[in-house]
Amino acid sequence: MKVLITGIDGYSGWPLALHLLARGHAVVGVDNFVTRRRVREVGSWSATPIPSFARRQAAVREILGKEIGFHRGDLERYDFVRHVLATERPDAIVHLAEQRSAPYSMIDVHHAVRTQAGNLTGTLHLLYAMRESCPDAHLVKMGTMGEYGTPNVDIPEGFFEIDYRGRSDRLPFPRQAGSWYHWSKVFDSGDVMFASRIWKLKATDVMQGVLYGIRTPEITDPRLLTRFDFDETWGTALNRFIVQAVLGLPITPYGKGDQKRGFIALEDSMQSLRLAVENPPDHGEYRVFNQFDAAYTVNELADVTARIATERGLHPTIEHPPNPRIEAEQHYYAPIHDHLARLGYRRTRALPDVVREIFRDLTRYRRRLEARRHVVQPTVRWASGDNREELRSRRPAEAPPEPAPVAPPAPERTSA
Amino acid sequence: MKVLITGIDGYSGWPLALHLLARGHAVVGVDNFVTRRRVREVGSWSATPIPSFARRQAAVREILGKEIGFHRGDLERYDFVRHVLATERPDAIVHLAEQRSAPYSMIDVHHAVRTQAGNLTGTLHLLYAMRESCPDAHLVKMGTMGEYGTPNVDIPEGFFEIDYRGRSDRLPFPRQAGSWYHWSKVFDSGDVMFASRIWKLKATDVMQGVLYGIRTPEITDPRLLTRFDFDETWGTALNRFIVQAVLGLPITPYGKGDQKRGFIALEDSMQSLRLAVENPPDHGEYRVFNQFDAAYTVNELADVTARIATERGLHPTIEHPPNPRIEAEQHYYAPIHDHLARLGYRRTRALPDVVREIFRDLTRYRRRLEARRHVVQPTVRWASGDNREELRSRRPAEAPPEPAPVAPPAPERTSA
Repeated sequence: MKVLITGIDGYSGWPLALHLLARGHAVVGVDNFVTRRRVREVGSWSATPIPSFARRQAAVREILGKEIGFHRGDLERYDFVRHVLATERPDAIVHLAEQRSAPYSMIDVHHAVRTQAGNLTGTLHLLYAMRESCPDAHLVKMGTMGEYGTPNVDIPEGFFEIDYRGRSDRLPFPRQAGSWYHWSKVFDSGDVMFASRIWKLKATDVMQGVLYGIRTPEITDPRLLTRFDFDETWGTALNRFIVQAVLGLPITPYGKGDQKRGFIALEDSMQSLRLAVENPPDHGEYRVFNQFDAAYTVNELADVTARIATERGLHPTIEHPPNPRIEAEQHYYAPIHDHLARLGYRRTRALPDVVREIFRDLTRYRRRLEARRHVVQPTVRWASGDNREELRSRRPAEAPPEPAPVAPPAPERTSA
Repeated sequence: MKVLITGIDGYSGWPLALHLLARGHAVVGVDNFVTRRRVREVGSWSATPIPSFARRQAAVREILGKEIGFHRGDLERYDFVRHVLATERPDAIVHLAEQRSAPYSMIDVHHAVRTQAGNLTGTLHLLYAMRESCPDAHLVKMGTMGEYGTPNVDIPEGFFEIDYRGRSDRLPFPRQAGSWYHWSKVFDSGDVMFASRIWKLKATDVMQGVLYGIRTPEITDPRLLTRFDFDETWGTALNRFIVQAVLGLPITPYGKGDQKRGFIALEDSMQSLRLAVENPPDHGEYRVFNQFDAAYTVNELADVTARIATERGLHPTIEHPPNPRIEAEQHYYAPIHDHLARLGYRRTRALPDVVREIFRDLTRYRRRLEARRHVVQPTVRWASGDNREELRSRRPAEAPPEPAPVAPPAPERTSA
């Protein structure tokens, strides 16, 4: 199959490209490199050194003997989107090109608007261009388990049968997102569901849990590494915890730490997305996958991190700062996730193994963490309407060293 | 109270200003006059001649002896919104400044994006500016009954208690909108609910039925008339039917015509909005009103129109063109609407009486309808991704006469 990946330069876009190539698919990518710029905007960088996209393409050519097609551009420009889809006519589009950080969306009004209007515009442009140029293609759209919030009932996969006042219907499960970013994903879901209905497009909406991991089997060379973010806006809780342990900082679950979320390993997410691509729905079918393996509380992530840090001879401590977010800290959480298993999905990675792998890599890139140690602590508070001053003030008086130009490091083998 | 009305130049914004002034409230308005431009864009105009806003203000001064404050500007500019709210510090904000036409949003990709991104941006800007400048103000946000779609169960007012797999919760009722415009209202609802939660704002979300009517008791002079749209994109089904009858064209319910919707008279909508303004919720309370009186099918509207046209000596016919929309044409429809009644709301107008009133006014402005008789028939189809050509091609070869400059007509009394 020919698969178009929007956001191919990103954390999951890049390993997905490698995974699909390894399985014999043709891959074309789109990116505008905005995530690289936005991570610089908050004073951070990727823990792993990331080559330019041209060097990434060259590494794939050299190491895997494969070509990745690429279009540099912005999904907010409709002419660009239409040109790419009309030229490439892909069988599937995996749409990962969205602003993906909840705290980034909460910085201030402009970040909120840019996140919601930008994500919405890109998705609408893709839907219209699909209708025009490749109505038989299958859209695999990345959503998030965060769309559902934390209701006091089980969370079905997108739809549920209800009885209400003596009648029944199958309805979309209500969404209660917890940040402007998460709401933007809810909005996308509405638009994709509607476009599928009026234009008979094939669509899979992936309610993905939080990703964890730094390696996939196809990352066989440092030039093939994907990015790994650890600052408070772009890094997940687990990423920040491991970096805190490596740097000798306290591990900091926000608030009570009983907030529970679904998680999935990067490698298993790639398996899931490939299964979705290889098993498209029918025309006019809008299906939803709850894509995660297991639910953990933030405290459980902190404990796993501390345990493995201790194994490695570190002396981790755990502290609970006030929660900068506004969210339930103790709640019921039981999402259903059967749809992917029916397509043959099997979990392959265990959380502690992946955490060990992350520790190994981060220890290797420790100097890059040291140079940005100020970015891990929270400054973006949900209750505030403007966090720009806090973001600026956390920067050390002396600006951190600029990223050195990235030379391809010596070849290394992964343990995976 | 001091009430800020965004979209004060619009169909319901203007009579709301008159109504609130009559009840002793202070009124300040915001508008960018985009609806006037967009109605011209599709080749139409208001059936009623509408003076410039400055002349509207002068008429209010002369006839009612009251002042309306006004800020001309666009809610998509945050500096403008912040300036207005910081300067005016209103007690309540009635937010009507949104692109409000479903067919307009379905014209093509650009109209879709402009509708969704524009409506979303204006609402986010208001929420942030409220948080910053007037956190005690009460936001009354105009939504639509169309957010709910046509589920096979009763429609509660925003939230419902459900039992699901042995547990229960109170959740937002699922939304299934039927156009990009209707989805934009769903998105606004999500953002207002979330802002109310994180910033403790007071918010009322009005799921309004379709408005009908041309007069309110405060419209005591032709210079105080509100706009009345009748073209296929900006006019409602009822407006188009009455215009068709006046012009001797067939009345055209789309498809089977059993599509059922909630309706409310313009005058009773003003009463409802005033009741919402005068009875604010608590800080952090997000309440939803289903604001309509009665549900009618499109066929029932056509029948009422034909009956009253016949009373007036006309010879109406009814035809059923193919439905340009994609929607259920036969469905269950039973929304609950108790919240407003609890605040003292009482219906004052009956549909046939209002239809008679519209016939009277439209007969008076018949020449304005004749000059735009080509705009009533449907051209914007939901199944198409680009309806611009159809919109252009329906224009007569000879351009219709330009609107004459509107001189204040001789004073008239309304029958209301």
